[in-house]
Amino acid sequence: MGAELVSAFRLALPEWIADITDEDRAYPGDLAKMELAVRLARENVRRASGGPFGAAIFDEADRLVAVGVNRVVPMHASIAHAEIMAIVCAQQRLGRHRLDEGGGRFLLATSAQPCCQCYGALFWAGLSELLIGARGEDVERLTEFDEGPLPEDWIGALARRGITVRRDLLREEACAVLAEYASAGGPFY
Amino acid sequence: MGAELVSAFRLALPEWIADITDEDRAYPGDLAKMELAVRLARENVRRASGGPFGAAIFDEADRLVAVGVNRVVPMHASIAHAEIMAIVCAQQRLGRHRLDEGGGRFLLATSAQPCCQCYGALFWAGLSELLIGARGEDVERLTEFDEGPLPEDWIGALARRGITVRRDLLREEACAVLAEYASAGGPFY
Repeated sequence: MGAELVSAFRLALPEWIADITDEDRAYPGDLAKMELAVRLARENVRRASGGPFGAAIFDEADRLVAVGVNRVVPMHASIAHAEIMAIVCAQQRLGRHRLDEGGGRFLLATSAQPCCQCYGALFWAGLSELLIGARGEDVERLTEFDEGPLPEDWIGALARRGITVRRDLLREEACAVLAEYASAGGPFY
Repeated sequence: MGAELVSAFRLALPEWIADITDEDRAYPGDLAKMELAVRLARENVRRASGGPFGAAIFDEADRLVAVGVNRVVPMHASIAHAEIMAIVCAQQRLGRHRLDEGGGRFLLATSAQPCCQCYGALFWAGLSELLIGARGEDVERLTEFDEGPLPEDWIGALARRGITVRRDLLREEACAVLAEYASAGGPFY
């Protein structure tokens, strides 16, 4: 064991994020939002900065609030999935633990269906809409990642707490990123 | 909206943590481990540093690896539950994204049943055992916190992935902390 207890941690996105995000534009419509999430996933694979997953959060004016990519291995943190990175970066930017605390609607676009951890995190983040690229079954078919257990009616459980789900946005493109990562051999965790 | 995208974040435990953790002793048996988790929860309420939840991770020699308390409101981060704080602090200390990656068994003691987010996070952390103080129904009966949706057989789903659950450790003491927090009026989130 190392010496002292750790009492704080810092989780960071890779530096290349700044090259492909543009805060001065709007991202109107579901496809433009999902395009960014899938591009983040693809870049994360090609730059070897984490797993094949990307996410982005937008406000109701279609402006980008935050992005995330999977950083589990480089950060030594099992929670550092794309959705979690985007959610906390958005909350830090807005200075509140629920994005919609002061009103407004926030949308999370994720390149693949959230795993059991990120699914649970959605409920407390202050989101209104969830866009999903690849399905959970795609993740488990194309890679060795485990999605974990979800409630049977997982979409209904989100809807009952005010979060609308739309799936299969750019599903093929999102699947291609998963396949590209798997063909390079992982790692899977 | 603030200026630039946020690309990293730091989450910290309160400074008083150092006063009540002792790395030189062992914590043999379930009760000694849960005592620390409940004490962390109680101190977090009394020092007004977060919600009424505490957690601690131990290795198979009964040594303390990391602790966590709820830091959602002070850190502006919906993920900063006690279990998540303990898991990531443990992973940072050991320098790996799965605690049991190099072998060994790790136990998480938490003062209250994990919510849907922390439940999902358990699967990827590299844990073997989970000790729970108050039940989810206690949390929802004694406070206004929402535990969120879990799979129907949530304990079985953990067991099938190698995580053993033991409940009702110091349940009354853990419930007393929840009641103390609620009687002071929250906040609940």
